[in-house]
Amino acid sequence: MGTTERAEGLARDVLEAVIAKTPFAVLVGAELVSYGDGAVELRVPMSPKITQHHGFAHGAVIGFMADSACAWAAASVAGDVVTAEYKLNLIAPAVGSALVARGTVVKASGRQVVCRADVFSQSEGGERIVATALATVMKFKA
Amino acid sequence: MGTTERAEGLARDVLEAVIAKTPFAVLVGAELVSYGDGAVELRVPMSPKITQHHGFAHGAVIGFMADSACAWAAASVAGDVVTAEYKLNLIAPAVGSALVARGTVVKASGRQVVCRADVFSQSEGGERIVATALATVMKFKA
Amino acid sequence: MGTTERAEGLARDVLEAVIAKTPFAVLVGAELVSYGDGAVELRVPMSPKITQHHGFAHGAVIGFMADSACAWAAASVAGDVVTAEYKLNLIAPAVGSALVARGTVVKASGRQVVCRADVFSQSEGGERIVATALATVMKFKA
Amino acid sequence: MGTTERAEGLARDVLEAVIAKTPFAVLVGAELVSYGDGAVELRVPMSPKITQHHGFAHGAVIGFMADSACAWAAASVAGDVVTAEYKLNLIAPAVGSALVARGTVVKASGRQVVCRADVFSQSEGGERIVATALATVMKFKA
Repeated sequence: MGTTERAEGLARDVLEAVIAKTPFAVLVGAELVSYGDGAVELRVPMSPKITQHHGFAHGAVIGFMADSACAWAAASVAGDVVTAEYKLNLIAPAVGSALVARGTVVKASGRQVVCRADVFSQSEGGERIVATALATVMKFKA
Repeated sequence: MGTTERAEGLARDVLEAVIAKTPFAVLVGAELVSYGDGAVELRVPMSPKITQHHGFAHGAVIGFMADSACAWAAASVAGDVVTAEYKLNLIAPAVGSALVARGTVVKASGRQVVCRADVFSQSEGGERIVATALATVMKFKA
Repeated sequence: MGTTERAEGLARDVLEAVIAKTPFAVLVGAELVSYGDGAVELRVPMSPKITQHHGFAHGAVIGFMADSACAWAAASVAGDVVTAEYKLNLIAPAVGSALVARGTVVKASGRQVVCRADVFSQSEGGERIVATALATVMKFKA
Repeated sequence: MGTTERAEGLARDVLEAVIAKTPFAVLVGAELVSYGDGAVELRVPMSPKITQHHGFAHGAVIGFMADSACAWAAASVAGDVVTAEYKLNLIAPAVGSALVARGTVVKASGRQVVCRADVFSQSEGGERIVATALATVMKFKA
């Protein structure tokens, strides 16, 4: 709709409406903390429904957060997007009171947006990195 | 408990008990189709609760299936395991009546098990590949 | 030049001319064993100039072989290509008399070709897997 | 040899001696710009011998630099290491007067060191990112 480079990004309220309609995001209680200009932070509170049999947050939750942080960082500069591929390192067991993922755009060029994201667990003792990801996100062609 | 190489694998009923207690696996309706000797097939029926705003299965479901197929293939030869890292290519939108993921062990050596998995969508017209993954799974140290 | 789907692939003599002009391919003595229809095999003889300080083939050689096997498999169906990204697992030290890499196309769709490749060391005792890769290759736009 | 945590890192002169004996590093003219405390910068001058048929630096050179930047950053905190796996995004054609790779440790834990690296091309106009990588490096067991 806009005519400037900036206008290509997805508006925050549009993204939040998408999140509200995504069953997995709703299940885990994902919340957008900050969004815009190629960076995003999302938060998922720790709860029994996101853990697995060792008592840590399930890898699917970490993967969802890392993938979403990359895709949403890309969306903030490129509009509607789909993740083409990502690589995720699960560094440490995710325990604590909440998980946060911070995604940033490394480089947007043509249809492709390369992004990275780190996922941290939060507890009284502060933050601890639990995962890191590198992703290729593509502008969506309707 | 066993003394043979084979005995190191996780028994199928133990894995199925783990799946039954994993909230995300229960949410999506994940079912073990076949399991053993370094190979696994799992199935998730298509349903509105696993889709996202474009109408395809959400990447978190594909990621869960690919990661699980790799980890469970590894578990069948190495016992209790954790995924250290994986890379996932999302090849095509996942539509159809069900998704299946097939994981296999590429090589087990020491504590490390390298695995790959393909995810397919199933419909009346047959199967179509929707994603492929390559993962490093580690034997769990209690 | 051609009008059929098949004609989009790069001809073998064109690829071999490219290899002959690539300094790194010449340095390591890379040779095309087989090529066509979405599959490729390349071979590098073991020699002191490709090893590193532990006495194994250097990771850069393995990376070159895996990347090339993916890109050339893609080229056989899609013509001139560039690798967008790849992930490589270095599974075992590469020792023996030669290394071979076998690449195959997992799926070609639009401009994107997803490929995988395995790298093996060859010795009198047979073959042993030393690495495996998963790559996204893109048709080159002149 | 040392008794402190810090002493576990590989000394710079030891690493430089390894580089001097690595044929591929010598071929491309790799030079250590800075090294220590979990961070490293290496430099490769642009020259006809590192380019491929499109005139850009060959992916094998970028892969070597990204892998080395990750491994050497890990070595600076963990001593002798081997790369277990890495993922590399080739973002833009590498042209200019030189390439630099900067690697950093994301997290060292147990035998595993997760690292990332960015590769830039340098020209009169400044720096431009050409690639980014994420790697798992393991302490070497003699």
